[in-house]
Amino acid sequence: MSGDSDRQGPVDGDTAQQEMIPSKKSAVLVDGVVLNGPMTDARAGEKFVEEACRLIMEEVVLKATDVNEKVCEWRPPEQLKQLLDLEMRDSGEPPHRLLELCRDVIRYSVKTNHPRFFNQLYAGLDYYSLVARFMTEALNPSVYTYEVSPVFLLVEEAVLKKMIEFIGWKEGDGIFNPGGSVSNMYAMNLARYKYRPDIKEKGLFGLPRLILFTSAECHYSMKKAASFLGIGTENVCFVETDGRGKMIPEELEKKVWQARKEGAAPFLVCATSGTTVLGAFDPLDEIADICERHSLWLHVDDLLKKCYSAKASYLFQQDKFYDVSYDTGDKSIQCSRRPDAFKFWMTWKALGTLGLEERVNRALALSRYLVDEIKKREGFKLLMEPEYANVCFWYIPPSLREMEEGPEFWAKLNLVAPAIKERMMKKGSLMLGYQPHRGKVNFFRQVVISPQVSREDMDFLLDEIDLLGRDM
Amino acid sequence: MSGDSDRQGPVDGDTAQQEMIPSKKSAVLVDGVVLNGPMTDARAGEKFVEEACRLIMEEVVLKATDVNEKVCEWRPPEQLKQLLDLEMRDSGEPPHRLLELCRDVIRYSVKTNHPRFFNQLYAGLDYYSLVARFMTEALNPSVYTYEVSPVFLLVEEAVLKKMIEFIGWKEGDGIFNPGGSVSNMYAMNLARYKYRPDIKEKGLFGLPRLILFTSAECHYSMKKAASFLGIGTENVCFVETDGRGKMIPEELEKKVWQARKEGAAPFLVCATSGTTVLGAFDPLDEIADICERHSLWLHVDDLLKKCYSAKASYLFQQDKFYDVSYDTGDKSIQCSRRPDAFKFWMTWKALGTLGLEERVNRALALSRYLVDEIKKREGFKLLMEPEYANVCFWYIPPSLREMEEGPEFWAKLNLVAPAIKERMMKKGSLMLGYQPHRGKVNFFRQVVISPQVSREDMDFLLDEIDLLGRDM
Repeated sequence: MSGDSDRQGPVDGDTAQQEMIPSKKSAVLVDGVVLNGPMTDARAGEKFVEEACRLIMEEVVLKATDVNEKVCEWRPPEQLKQLLDLEMRDSGEPPHRLLELCRDVIRYSVKTNHPRFFNQLYAGLDYYSLVARFMTEALNPSVYTYEVSPVFLLVEEAVLKKMIEFIGWKEGDGIFNPGGSVSNMYAMNLARYKYRPDIKEKGLFGLPRLILFTSAECHYSMKKAASFLGIGTENVCFVETDGRGKMIPEELEKKVWQARKEGAAPFLVCATSGTTVLGAFDPLDEIADICERHSLWLHVDDLLKKCYSAKASYLFQQDKFYDVSYDTGDKSIQCSRRPDAFKFWMTWKALGTLGLEERVNRALALSRYLVDEIKKREGFKLLMEPEYANVCFWYIPPSLREMEEGPEFWAKLNLVAPAIKERMMKKGSLMLGYQPHRGKVNFFRQVVISPQVSREDMDFLLDEIDLLGRDM
Repeated sequence: MSGDSDRQGPVDGDTAQQEMIPSKKSAVLVDGVVLNGPMTDARAGEKFVEEACRLIMEEVVLKATDVNEKVCEWRPPEQLKQLLDLEMRDSGEPPHRLLELCRDVIRYSVKTNHPRFFNQLYAGLDYYSLVARFMTEALNPSVYTYEVSPVFLLVEEAVLKKMIEFIGWKEGDGIFNPGGSVSNMYAMNLARYKYRPDIKEKGLFGLPRLILFTSAECHYSMKKAASFLGIGTENVCFVETDGRGKMIPEELEKKVWQARKEGAAPFLVCATSGTTVLGAFDPLDEIADICERHSLWLHVDDLLKKCYSAKASYLFQQDKFYDVSYDTGDKSIQCSRRPDAFKFWMTWKALGTLGLEERVNRALALSRYLVDEIKKREGFKLLMEPEYANVCFWYIPPSLREMEEGPEFWAKLNLVAPAIKERMMKKGSLMLGYQPHRGKVNFFRQVVISPQVSREDMDFLLDEIDLLGRDM
């Protein structure tokens, strides 16, 4: 890779010397600091980036889909601290040492791209999205005004428009957030704004006690949101669910009546389409009817901008020379914001709508395959027939297979998943999440997401759990 | 770059055919979907990533420090929509077409790494931080539990520890957030929790009107935070500042007394060290004395975790086999979170504390150089002597230089910065922010941040503004 000879900055030989040494007559000094030329060495920096990119390509990207690699290289915290050179010192480290550090960071990091990383609701490597993320980091934009993020604002607009079309709405608005928890906070805030727009200025002071309804299976961020927004966790009213984890509409309506009777002010119902643990879908139509009857908010729409606007004069000047409706920063609770829509756009462009559809179909088919295998195999037991891609199951080790399903059985079974998890982490062969849930003792939860995952990985998952747990 | 022959996945020739075509006898089908092998072509994906990385290296990183390149390639929204192929279709695009799209995205994006991008409070290219960001994106971690982010959690702990040492505290805690706006929300929420811990559960219902104090120069996110947290924008009490933008302590105390008299409940003073526009520092010692007298919160400490904890059983299992105090996800309002501390750590490692200090010193020296130049040159006028790196100034075009500084002068001067900004954007030579501020008409604001910036860029900045505005 060759440098540009016109580039400003230190170059090899005399010119660099002339620019870098303060004693030369051309140097401009202020308070003893030489101000000529940039203070970074662009050549050295570029070389470091190139070498690091090669390392990332080899050690992360190329190994990402290789099932022969370990998912993790487990070390307990105190031991890992000894292995990594974490300390920040007065003097900097040379590039070759930094590359060694990078190698260590990669080595001891969990390989979330690995086909057998099933631990969380993200997994796998999408090459197109990865490129979009590299571009984002290199271009380093912040999506708030058209003037600094022209392309990314148009991309976000295009993605939102397409998503709104998919939902079947004629109009709408939205925003890409740093995650689901923040999105739930937006939803709650918008509902509150709809209920009483003057809460924006006046706050909750002097108002009746606001109360919201969600299912007992909702994401835990709902409580965080209620706490953060000043509503209070006790004012999140959890509606009972049926055996499959779906909100029971009759229970919702009962709770709404009861809250009103107690003098509280219902303002929001948060329904869930695909709960975190069980993957359950609340019955939206029936819930929507109840919301309509009681004037409760169920959806997010284009109230967004009006609600968040703070009109910062140094960012959102109205005398700009272009259409300022593209300066969308004022509809976010953040100021600086990454162009997350760009990643999705790139993947959508690469796969097309049909390719995305194929991915979803395959993930669901793999889940169904896994369910069938669980039913066939001795020692595996489904928590329930899954509605979506979440497959929840217990592994029952040989010593428990003949035991009656009483308190002792469940107490012992509760210890199995954590013990198997410890073994799989230490071996590095697999990562799978487990949890107890509403009276059910610890069980594994498998959600197929990654496009790298195949039928072979589903078989491996069950074989490996059996291998790790058969002496228990 | 050669592939690993053991890798799972489609390969060239017969094997690929065998795995990809449903009619083969070894295929496992569920609902018509073939489940054998991964559905992505790893080879093709890796090739695309490699080619895109080359493009990013050449078109972004290598050009980042080149002053001969344009800062931006301005196009108005409607025209840019025509130039970019934004539409997402049913079928995907081939890799060469995706690379063309990437090229377009880079071409029309603002080059925030360019030495003459002065538009915002971020600028320049730090090669080490860029590598950390590439690594983050490739490894794709989420910082909430030690089990999925062992390295990044330890890095964050090390960085926070070092930063707390720097502040001079013996103990403390913290968290890296997606930005300053979110950080301000945390500060406000922590102060409220300190004032009345049961607000977390009960909400603000039935409490006296909470009120907080900040200077009139504070970041605009304070109002957003107050609105979001249910406190209300009217309960952000703005304390008067002196001519240099610093909070006047006597005014603060007066306002606190007044609020108490009105029955409101003061709970927080937000002081600012380096305001957004003027770069002013509030007098912390005097403000701290007032806070102590009135039992008002001024700082953020390790109440953090207790305040946010929601104890989600599926993430934060207490029966894990390692020290769960490293599962810090429960102290954040987000669930998934990027390891932002890692970027800072890498830069700190590379430069050392002394190298970081040198960068700050040079930025301040460059600001002083710019101030001196502004004083020397005809047609430039400082808003005030800067306290920090923010240099605020007007350019007075020849036609206004002889005019008396009355209403007509200011009205005309107000139009100058937007007109020059339009010209510089269309030429692409420079990007610099402007704003009106508290009775002062539109002025330019220059904040030196980038390590690529030199004395030559300061000269260019003033020369170019004069060149663009001398006919006005």
